[in-house]
This record gives sequence, C-alpha cells and structure tokens, in this order.
Amino acid sequence: MIFDKLIDKIVSMQNPTCVGLDTSFDYLPESMRAGVKDFESASKAVFAFNKGIVDCVCDIVPAVKVQIAYYEALGASGMDCFEKTCAYAKEKGLFVIADAKRNDIGATASRYAEAFLGEGGFGRAFAADMLTVNAYLGSDGVLPFLEECKARDKGIFVLVKTSNPSSGELQNLKLSDGRTVYECMGDMTKTWGEGTQGEYGFTRVGAVVGATYPEEAKILRERLPDTFFLIPGYGAQGAGADMLKNCFKKGGRGGIVNNSRGILCAYKKRGGDHFEAARAAAIDMQKDLLSTLGELCAR
Amino acid sequence: MIFDKLIDKIVSMQNPTCVGLDTSFDYLPESMRAGVKDFESASKAVFAFNKGIVDCVCDIVPAVKVQIAYYEALGASGMDCFEKTCAYAKEKGLFVIADAKRNDIGATASRYAEAFLGEGGFGRAFAADMLTVNAYLGSDGVLPFLEECKARDKGIFVLVKTSNPSSGELQNLKLSDGRTVYECMGDMTKTWGEGTQGEYGFTRVGAVVGATYPEEAKILRERLPDTFFLIPGYGAQGAGADMLKNCFKKGGRGGIVNNSRGILCAYKKRGGDHFEAARAAAIDMQKDLLSTLGELCAR
Repeated sequence: MIFDKLIDKIVSMQNPTCVGLDTSFDYLPESMRAGVKDFESASKAVFAFNKGIVDCVCDIVPAVKVQIAYYEALGASGMDCFEKTCAYAKEKGLFVIADAKRNDIGATASRYAEAFLGEGGFGRAFAADMLTVNAYLGSDGVLPFLEECKARDKGIFVLVKTSNPSSGELQNLKLSDGRTVYECMGDMTKTWGEGTQGEYGFTRVGAVVGATYPEEAKILRERLPDTFFLIPGYGAQGAGADMLKNCFKKGGRGGIVNNSRGILCAYKKRGGDHFEAARAAAIDMQKDLLSTLGELCAR
Repeated sequence: MIFDKLIDKIVSMQNPTCVGLDTSFDYLPESMRAGVKDFESASKAVFAFNKGIVDCVCDIVPAVKVQIAYYEALGASGMDCFEKTCAYAKEKGLFVIADAKRNDIGATASRYAEAFLGEGGFGRAFAADMLTVNAYLGSDGVLPFLEECKARDKGIFVLVKTSNPSSGELQNLKLSDGRTVYECMGDMTKTWGEGTQGEYGFTRVGAVVGATYPEEAKILRERLPDTFFLIPGYGAQGAGADMLKNCFKKGGRGGIVNNSRGILCAYKKRGGDHFEAARAAAIDMQKDLLSTLGELCAR
C-alpha cells in the first residue's frame, strides 16, 4: 500500500522531507536561462534544472511534490515538462506528489483522476503517486479519485487546513455544531479514508495541514489518528521545525514536510553551485526536523 | 468591462447560454475517431470536433466553457488542444470561460492567473476571458486572479453553490452566525468584487451557482445583486428552465447557463449530423430559457 511504502522509505532514510518542485523559471541559474526565448525552450530548461535537483536529492529524500501551476504557466510545453519531471523523479525512485488541488463534480473529477493517478484508453497522462484535492464540492468530487487510488495503489491529500495567511477566513469559521470548517473537512477526510488502512494504520486519503498553524495541527493530529499529513509551510512560509511537531504522532510518524523555495533557491543564501546548495539545504532540513522529531519509527 | 461586453452579447443574441466543451473523446462521431491511437491523434480529433461545434454555434451562442479536465486526461497534447480550442473560440467571437476551478496560496495562484488570464515573460499560455476559481483558501487564493482581471479586463467565477448531488455536505452546513457556508462564500465573493462594477452593475468576481438548487439560488440572487452567475446543472444534470429562473434578476439579467453533454451529444437523441444536431439543441435550449425568462434586457 502506497503510504506503507512511503513510510518505509521515510524511516529508512530517516527523512520526512518532500522537495517541492515549484520551479519558477527565474529560479534557474543564469547559465541555464541563457538563450531561452519561448515556452518550449523555457520548459526544456526547467526540466534540465529539475533533473539536476532530483539527481542531487534522490538518495537522501523520499519524495517530491510537483506544483503544477508553474508548469501550466508555460502552456502545453510546460505540461510536457511536468510529465517528464514526474516520470524522471519516479525513475529515480522518488514518490511523486502532484500538487494540483483538483476538484470538480463526479464525471469531471473522474477525468482528473484518470489524468494524474490512472490511465485512459491511450495510456498514462501524468505519472503521480499522490494528488492534492480540494473537497469544497463534497464526496462526489473525492470518490472518483479514491476509486483510482484503490485500483492502482495511489493516494490523495485533501486540503484541510492550508498554510497560507488567509486560510482561516473560511476554514476557521465555527459551525453551528461547534466544529470549525477545517475540523469538519478533517472529519470528512477521515470518513472517505475508512476501510483503506495500510499495515501502518494510515488510510489512502491524507490531509494537507499547514505547519504555520500549530494549534490547528494539534487538534487535527488528535482528531485524525489514521490520516497521513502533507505539511507545507516550513521555511520560506515561516514555520520552523518546532512549529510542525504538532503535525506528527509519536516517533515522528504520520507526515511529510514540504520545502520548495528553501531548497530550489538555497544557492541565493549559500552561494556556490545550485545543486550542491540544494543538497546541502536538504541535509540541513533533515537535521533540523530530526532534532525536533527524534528517531523516526514506522510503528 | 468584460461582463458588460458579455451582457451586451447575451442581449443582442437573446441567448444566455454557454456551450460546455467538456469534450470527452468518446463523444466524437465514429468517423472522427477512426485511426486515433494515442494522445496526439486523440487531441487532434478533439480539436477538429470542437472547431465543428464552435462553427455551428458561434452565431447564436455568446460563450463557451472549456472544461480542462477532459484535456488534461490527454496529457500535454491535450493541453495543446485546450489552448487551440480557447484560441479558436475567441477568434470566432465567443467569450471563453476556462473551467479549471484553480486554487492555491498567493504566489502559486499568481502563476495560475498568469496561465489562464494573463501573460508571462514568454507570452500567453491559454487565452481565456474568465476562469472558475475555488476559494477554500480564502483571499490569498483569490486576489492574485483579481489583480490579473483588473489589469487585463478579465473575470473570475468563484464556486459558491455547486450543482452536484453532494454539494451540500459542506456548502449547506450552518455556521454559528446563522449563515450557511455557501452564503458565507457568497458574501466573500461580494467583498472581493467590490469596486469593480461595470456599467451594468456587475463585478469582475462572478459566482458559480448550480441550477439544480433553486432554493439556494434564490437566496444567493437576493444576497448578491451585483454578482454575475455562471449556472451549471441544466439538462443532463437534471435542472429544467423553470428551476433556473431563481438564478436571474428581472429581465433575465445576471447569469449565463451552461450546457455541455446536452449539446455535444445531441446527435445521440436526434440522430443525423453531429454538428447540425448540436446547433438544433442550442436553438431549443435558447427557446426553452426564453420561455421562462422572457425578453432579456441589459438593465
């Protein structure tokens, strides 16, 4: 089961980190940007950069999260780059989380599920292991993804409590039954996951829980013991290792922490070679996380 | 201002209809499916079909809504087809609504805004006039789109009350202040739109309001007098013309009704040529809507 496999890799690497490939073209070193003049050449340059990042972290980091917005901004060529990036990361043994926050009504959600997690009559569009999903539309918009997850050993992460400054505008409102909207979304996430637990007890329906909100994370961690968390907000968004402890269970179980700019743009702080700087930043992040979480265990 | 222009076109055509290009490959006539064996040839066939649909409705219908999930399922080639479909519809004078329900935190939302409504350093990725947006993340996830709307005369539609069966699971829950979640989302939509009214009084921040929920539509129509509605749910999803009257103001003002399968697959019911059947279905839909709404007025 995909989350068992991910957890095994996290434990064997002692690293609950996910490198975010939110590769903005302007993050690339000048040498890689030279001569780029259109979507096609920009997409090729971004793919070359992503390959470099994947090569320099794949032996120390278990997963990448590829943020699709940066690729869509480069049109169809960018989507080709997205596909190649996912495929290359998988080839190098990394788990691939497509961060696309897709959502739609049933029939349409099925198409998204096919695109990211499945396969249609003409083959596989994008090779992700897991996909982020926005569940404002309720079960109809989630179950088609879950179906694909069960059929092909994949996973999803439902947006529960996001890391951004305004996430509370809706998510922290109180419902008449006393729960907040994010608690309610957490409860629905739990329900959707029921019956899909793997060996380590986590379901196929994970949750996005921002490290920037430790109080909410604590509530969700207790409320959703069987839900694996994808944790954004570390680093550039402001959360330190101490803030994200609440996202984890004992033994540092039940979550993976994303870092995008802090790794991709590490050279800006550290100087030197881009890829060496990214690797050094990934190692520092691992140390930082382990100093708070202690030794990681699977059970 | 884009909504003024759309309203002018709706009034001059006396047709508040939007044709949904949710073009599933299996909707294509057998002759167009012949010889297709991969994403590239499927994408070409879908584009040829979309061109046929656009050609046969562009003089009687003001807008198309292109549902991106169907294109993503065909990979990067599908996205090329999405881009060409949007561009062709624009060339033929149609307003193009990209139905992508995008959502993310600020910096990433800016990239989606650039992709669908704006232009980056290497040009325009996709040529939409309007984009659907999911606002579970609050203002951070909406304002980057609004910025692009103001800069380039574009619009967005925020998901407020969606047309699907399970939309009430979250959207109809009561908040502790007595509002439902969808009313709260409606109120936020109103706030985001403030100060962007065009000549006819509507803001750049529209709302998606399903025709399948006439009670909720009535509440929202009264609550959001300056919000233009994108109305899914007519036809295949079960709403008749009588059900969507509540989505409109007096004089049939303030909304546009989408129909996808009912037009694209009209040949299945009517027989004969695909495109002639689609045109006939569009004309029937117009008559059906006008029989309920009466003559359409701009003010």
